[in-house]
Amino acid sequence: MNAAFDDWMKTVQAGSENDLSGFLPAADVIPTKLHEAMRYALLGGGKRVRPLLVYAAGALFGADAATLSRAAAAVEMIHAYSLVHDDMPCMDDDELRRGKPTVHVAYDEATALLVGDALQSQAFMVLSAADQVPPARVLAMVRLLAHASGSAGMCGGQAIDLDSVGISLTLEQLEKMHQLKTGALLRASVVLGALAGKDLTEEELNALNVYARAIGLAFQVVDDVLDATADSATLGKTAGKDAADNKPTYVSILGLEPSRALAEKLRLDAHAALAPFGEKALRLRELADLIVQRKA
Amino acid sequence: MNAAFDDWMKTVQAGSENDLSGFLPAADVIPTKLHEAMRYALLGGGKRVRPLLVYAAGALFGADAATLSRAAAAVEMIHAYSLVHDDMPCMDDDELRRGKPTVHVAYDEATALLVGDALQSQAFMVLSAADQVPPARVLAMVRLLAHASGSAGMCGGQAIDLDSVGISLTLEQLEKMHQLKTGALLRASVVLGALAGKDLTEEELNALNVYARAIGLAFQVVDDVLDATADSATLGKTAGKDAADNKPTYVSILGLEPSRALAEKLRLDAHAALAPFGEKALRLRELADLIVQRKA
Repeated sequence: MNAAFDDWMKTVQAGSENDLSGFLPAADVIPTKLHEAMRYALLGGGKRVRPLLVYAAGALFGADAATLSRAAAAVEMIHAYSLVHDDMPCMDDDELRRGKPTVHVAYDEATALLVGDALQSQAFMVLSAADQVPPARVLAMVRLLAHASGSAGMCGGQAIDLDSVGISLTLEQLEKMHQLKTGALLRASVVLGALAGKDLTEEELNALNVYARAIGLAFQVVDDVLDATADSATLGKTAGKDAADNKPTYVSILGLEPSRALAEKLRLDAHAALAPFGEKALRLRELADLIVQRKA
Repeated sequence: MNAAFDDWMKTVQAGSENDLSGFLPAADVIPTKLHEAMRYALLGGGKRVRPLLVYAAGALFGADAATLSRAAAAVEMIHAYSLVHDDMPCMDDDELRRGKPTVHVAYDEATALLVGDALQSQAFMVLSAADQVPPARVLAMVRLLAHASGSAGMCGGQAIDLDSVGISLTLEQLEKMHQLKTGALLRASVVLGALAGKDLTEEELNALNVYARAIGLAFQVVDDVLDATADSATLGKTAGKDAADNKPTYVSILGLEPSRALAEKLRLDAHAALAPFGEKALRLRELADLIVQRKA
């Protein structure tokens, strides 16, 4: 990593933390327990990969800052809500997230359920209040986020994931699952950032989709590699859980070294997709590197 | 009830059923179990009170039919998702809804969680795709629905409800809880229907809010009366549950007859608020009557 990228990343992460806090009701607003728990779930942690992608894509077309800030917050709220629900006992039953007790452990299950539900609403509230770009474009952004979040995106991927515990998936099925479960929201982050700048041509949208698809898959391949090789303290969540749950992973299907090689190939694919954007795609290229080379 | 109202209601209900089905992915689209369960949760039942309110308010200003259809479907999807989540074991733990096993009983808890999550996304997808009124107005509708659904609306009311089991609420606190838990979405239904017709003046919005507030409260008062007096077969859900759960209700605070009198007063308040709209408010008046005089 170079220092300029590192500085940019810290600036976006700190800005996102600040924006997310501002876009949530204060903890002393009734119902206080719900608002406290929403803040607990959303603030004070996370790599903010999705906001970073929103801002990096925003740089392609000089996007308006206020619109980027809403898009980044909205997509991170969707991501945070999905973590809260995925961690619940009826799903992955996880007790540790980002080094802290999960929401249903720190509060209770009913609160965790409502925190997720309310964060999803809040995401659409924040995004639909963007007023610095034409309303038709904001509406397109809302549609994109809703599509990426629902049964054709993140929720659909989670449903496929649940159905595949204990059964053996082909590489193709595993890829389809991840393209929905995590890929859809990462892709939405990139396209939302670009849309905050301008309406996209078909060529631009295609190039961004190829990039986002590559980093989405790489993200998951690296997740599987880390789950198999890192410890819980480094990850901030329970390591080795996929193997223990008998979940199919890239490592279990391909093996460790071929998984690492695949991640590297996807990183290069992502770079290639960005060629038409030239120097303005610098941050998107660096994020592809970060996603593949991260240690947690 | 008169025959013309009855016909209108049946037409809206059948049309809504049809629209809701069309706005959901087919049951054979992957992930099939999730899509089947979403259809199970949303279709084939329900009084469709919210779509009726959307259409009745749409009649005030000659609203566009396609926009009404999207608004009605979106608000009903939010309502249906909230029922699925509220019925889960960590919330109200109900096994019967509209005379059928609840989603987590018919499927499983993880699926119920995802069904609710995906229905919420679907609601925003359907509404934000409205393209027959100016985009700025559609955006205002999205903001309104998101606000009514989240922590300042329905989810917030549910959080207050959870916190008040076993403690005694004042009439004012009980009212505040219901204004959020069920009132916010009923109010959104009325305003969404009107917005599908035109931008609202402050006077129009105020009148509609007074109407919606009155029927929202009346709806809950009547629910409490029915919970205390009707049987499970008539209600299509477990009767007497509030008392068994030691939940505060209008009946437990005011008594049965004063609760009935309050519902009747609220019905008249609702009528009064509609005076400025004249004959075009006919269906809204009739719906106020229906809400207070219903038997289930």
